[in-house]
This record gives sequence, C-alpha cells and structure tokens, in this order.
Amino acid sequence: MRLAVIAGDGIGPEVIGEALQVLDVVVDGVETTEYDLGARRYHATGELLTDADLASIREHDAILLGAIGDPSVPSGVLERGLLLTMRFALDHHVNLRPSVRYPNVAVPLAGDPSIDFVVVREGTEGPYTGNGGAIRTGTPHEVATEVSLNTRFGVERVVRYAFERAQVRRKKLTLVHKTNVLAFAGSLWQRTVDEVGRGYPDVATDYCHVDAATIHMVTDPGRFDVIVTDNLFGDIITDIAAAVSGGIGLAASGNIDATGTNPSMFEPVHGSAPDIAGQDKADPTAAILSGALLLRHLGDTAAAERVEMAVAADLAERTGPVSTTETGARIRARL
Amino acid sequence: MRLAVIAGDGIGPEVIGEALQVLDVVVDGVETTEYDLGARRYHATGELLTDADLASIREHDAILLGAIGDPSVPSGVLERGLLLTMRFALDHHVNLRPSVRYPNVAVPLAGDPSIDFVVVREGTEGPYTGNGGAIRTGTPHEVATEVSLNTRFGVERVVRYAFERAQVRRKKLTLVHKTNVLAFAGSLWQRTVDEVGRGYPDVATDYCHVDAATIHMVTDPGRFDVIVTDNLFGDIITDIAAAVSGGIGLAASGNIDATGTNPSMFEPVHGSAPDIAGQDKADPTAAILSGALLLRHLGDTAAAERVEMAVAADLAERTGPVSTTETGARIRARL
Ligand SMILES: CC(C)[C@H](C(=O)O)[C@@H](O)C(=O)O
Ligand SMILES: CC(C)[C@H](C(=O)O)[C@@H](O)C(=O)O
Repeated sequence: MRLAVIAGDGIGPEVIGEALQVLDVVVDGVETTEYDLGARRYHATGELLTDADLASIREHDAILLGAIGDPSVPSGVLERGLLLTMRFALDHHVNLRPSVRYPNVAVPLAGDPSIDFVVVREGTEGPYTGNGGAIRTGTPHEVATEVSLNTRFGVERVVRYAFERAQVRRKKLTLVHKTNVLAFAGSLWQRTVDEVGRGYPDVATDYCHVDAATIHMVTDPGRFDVIVTDNLFGDIITDIAAAVSGGIGLAASGNIDATGTNPSMFEPVHGSAPDIAGQDKADPTAAILSGALLLRHLGDTAAAERVEMAVAADLAERTGPVSTTETGARIRARL
Repeated sequence: MRLAVIAGDGIGPEVIGEALQVLDVVVDGVETTEYDLGARRYHATGELLTDADLASIREHDAILLGAIGDPSVPSGVLERGLLLTMRFALDHHVNLRPSVRYPNVAVPLAGDPSIDFVVVREGTEGPYTGNGGAIRTGTPHEVATEVSLNTRFGVERVVRYAFERAQVRRKKLTLVHKTNVLAFAGSLWQRTVDEVGRGYPDVATDYCHVDAATIHMVTDPGRFDVIVTDNLFGDIITDIAAAVSGGIGLAASGNIDATGTNPSMFEPVHGSAPDIAGQDKADPTAAILSGALLLRHLGDTAAAERVEMAVAADLAERTGPVSTTETGARIRARL
C-alpha cells in the first residue's frame, strides 16, 4: 500500500502522525511518501502544487491529508491553489462525508438523537470551479460574478454513486438543493435523481431544500440515510452534520475518484487550527477515521472495521479532553 | 396606516388573521387591502403577480404576507413568480431576520444558550436573480449554470444598513461568506465591509465562512450580534438560526426597501405548511411578530414593543401546543 502523505499546516502533522501509526498497526507494508505542501513551502518557494508534485502523487494508491491553511497566507490562496486544485486535477468527484454519532459521544443537541447518515457531496462542479469574474474592481460600479457549473455527466455520476450507497444502507436517498430558486441547476439535479432512481426501485427518494435540510439536521438528524447534494450545499451541510454528531474533531471525509483512475484523498473535515498547533492538543480521531475510510476504499474492509471499532471503544470511555498522542496511543492499544 | 395584505396559501390566512387582529388592538385606523395572490388565483387565472397588482400594492405603507406555496403548483413557480418577483420589483434589498430566544422557550440545543442576533441578508442579488441557463437539456450533454451577481452598489447598501444596526446594538458585525472559494464575490463583500467599517470605528467586525457559521449557530449562537451576508447564505443560516432559537414558528422577517421608495414587506419565515392548513393548528406567533417588525419599520416603536412584550409573556407561560385562534386571543388579552 503506497500512500502519498500531505501532513500540511497547523495541527496537520500531529494528527497525521497518529493516523499513520494506526495504519501501521492494522496493515502490513504501508509505504509512505511525504509531500511538503502548504504554508511553509509556499512561503519558501512560492509554490502551491506543481505538476511534478501531482505526477508523483498520482503514483500512489491513495492520499492521506492532514490540514492546509495558515493565517500568514491570504485566505483562499492555499485553499484554491492546493486543496481545490488537487480535487479537480485528480477528479475527486465524490466527496464522501459520513456522520455517525458514536455511543457516549456528547452532542450539542437536546434529546439523545441517534445519527447515522452519509453525505455524498459533488466535488468538481457547482460554484467551486473558479468560474467568475469582476469588472470595475474597487470602484462604486464594481460587478462580481460567480458561476455555478453543473453538467449531466457530473451530476449523474455522483447521483449514481449515492444510490449505490443507499442500496447497501437503509435504502433512502435525499436530494438537497434549492430547486425553487436555482431553477436551471435544480431541474438538472432533480431530473437526474428521478431518472437514475428508476434503476434503484428499492431505494426511496425524497427532496429537501437546503435551508430546510439545515433545520432537520438540528431537530431530526435521524431522518437522513444518504444525502446527495451539490458542492457548495454539501460544504455547508456537512459542517452542521459534523457539529451535531459529535463535533468537527470526529468528522472524516474522502475525496474520491470513483472510476479509480486517480488516487483518492482522505482527510479530516477540520482545518489546520493554528491556535492549538504544536501543543499536543488536537484530537486525532478524525484523521484516524479518515485512515479507516482510506482502508475501506482500498478494499481492506476488515482493517477499516478494526480501526472504527477501536475508535468507538475509545470514545465510549473518554471522559474529557485527551492529548493528541495519548488518544492515538489509546486507540492503538485497542487494536 | 394602509396595509396591503397577502394572506396567501395554506396556513397563511389563519396566521395573518391573528396578526391583523393584534395590529387592530395596538394601532388606530389600520386600513387593509387584501390581495388574492398564490395558488388559488394561479389555478383560476394563470396569474402570479400582475403589473396592476404591483401598482396597487405600491399605494400602501407596508405589506403583510402570510405564506405562499402549495403542492398543487410545481415547485418554484409561485416562489419565483410571486415572492421573488415582489422582492425585486419593490427593491427589498434588506432582508432582516432577527433571532431572539424568548424566556422559557425550548430550543433543540443542549445547554441553555442565550440568543439575540439579527441577520441582515441581501435580498436582490447573489444567486437569486434568475441569471442562469441550460443547454442540451434532457440529454447526456446537458450543462446548466446559475450566476451569482454581486455589485458594489448592492453590497454596500446592505453592509451600511448592517453597520447602522450594529451601532445601536452590541456593536459587533460578522460578515458571513465563502471568500476562500468564491473569490470574486467574496473579495467584493470583504472589501466593502472593510471600507464601510472605517466609518463605524466603534463597531468590531469579524468574518466567518458560511460553513463554520453554521457550526457556531449550533454550538455558540450567543457569539453573534449582527450578521451581514449574501442572499443565498442568508437564506440558509436564517433557517438554522430559527431552528436553534425556538423554531420556525417564531421567526419573523422583513423585506425592506431601506430608501423608503417602495413599501416594505413583513412575513413569517415559515412556509404555507399545507399539511396543517385549515386546522387551527398553526402557530401565529411568527406572523404576529412580523406585524411588530412592520410597526417598528413604520416608526411606531411603542406599539411594536407592546406586541413583542405580549408575545414574550405568552411564550413564557406556554406549556404545550395551543391553537392558532387561542394563541392570538391570549396575546391580545395581554395588550
Ligand atoms: C477549505 C475549503 C476550500 C473546503 C471546501 O469548501 O470544500 C473545506 O471547507 C471543506 O469542506 O473541505
Ligand atoms: C421560498 C423561497 C424563495 C425563500 C427564499 O429562498 O428566499 C424562502 O426560503 C425564504 O427564506 O424566504
């Protein structure tokens, strides 16, 4: 198993260190290549992600990423120049974000909701393509546009992926969009779900406006099984999903090329949290669970389940904040 | 006080009936013109909102709207043809949505958060302008676009409005956007906040990505005072805001032309809820509070405060669901 490792900025190296040690326990022969990408390299060389980096990364079975982002770099530079560039270059069209509430994990919601759904977020279209522009910038007559691009090809492949997921889960798929306002994109998404759905008659489908979906996340998250949605709506609802199901410290994600042509990338949903970097404070659980998603993606379901069970067992006994290294050690001790 | 009343569909007429009765108690000489707009008229005549309707509505001091929408009409037809058409025609550029947790009101969050913020949502730009299109519709090569339009003129006027609000509140303004991805629009919004903010040195400003903002809504809603944001982000975060501060049954809103050229429109954030229409079940509180926002907008602060205090007192003693008419009667009894 050859892994490209991008530890990145802030708490990235700390949490990735723990995740790699966990992978080493459950899989034999993990070979890693470390990539120096992120704020440090950008300041030192001005480089974000070179063609050579990309070519080399492609030689791996999968990518494990910690976090990218630092206050010393203007907002957006690393996100667009590195994270989004990679998602687009490697055609990571499925952004997979499971939300599971583990036993004994405190959630910010009243009641004791049980939560187990997965968001299939489109990863290469929508308003994320950088397709926009501005005229008369800096004047009273400035006009700035952002264009959301949506193709049948792009929508259909994630919708199909979502139906496949639903079929091996509770067989319920919810489209989240804003079809009543975004009529062109909305119609494309809705028709695609309707048409692809005919091939999955055992999967029940429904529809939720994105605004209403956020309410359900807070008042009734148990209603969701698989959600399929566009890039921007997926970005927003997966953050609420993480918040309600135990916090961003536990949320793992996969950026997947479902055709298998390019290596897929696995990363915690959280950011680089520079305020706590280097203090052995960050929770490595999301990174460790991202490692489990990676294993599952590469077909090693048994190893993935071992990791997930060890995490669940550890979470069930956590009574307060634990250090990064100790959390990793405790999870490894259960393996 | 001449009010244009659009009771609309579903529970609209029921909740507006109570709101109007409340206004009659606190203000002398309310004259109303009722407009038959919504699903019934659409089915009967094919009309959504005619030029004659608009011309007549313009002759009023303000508009009170119940809810628009019915499952018998394809999604989007009434929303775009009526609600959004009205917002654009009457230049309702400020969409004002306060979130207040009233004493004793149960919220879906753990802990006992105190919540008192207001979202100033832009109402006439962003991805809401209908500016998009599609080619090869219905084929495997379909491409659909949605364009977000943002102008310095449009952004500046709502940002200025938000700073004015912040100055008479807790003097904190948060811009919510997605500047790291939507670089053109994001830069326009951020620069406008920075520049306008120089005229309000006593107001502290900060910035939150929309995804992170939804997390804060759930984990720490007390941090917000005034939020200023784009049309679509505002749509999404005000629904979560309503959910966390007592439910969509209490959330009031104003669609305001801050220049005073056109009448502003006040409406509950909730929809037409056809499933409970005509059953005396809908909570009229949001409609009644929308009436209070209307009074405040027309300068009758004293009457607005009387209504809000009566609502607060009623909420403090509510023990379970009460009927539409009884809730209205109880609130009026306190006036
Ligand atoms: C950092 C940013 C570009 C990214 C996104 O918006 O996709 C992040 O929020 C995420 O969800 O992975
Ligand atoms: C009905 C719809 C067009 C509307 C919107 O998206 O603005 C509604 O959700 C709202 O928030 O008032």
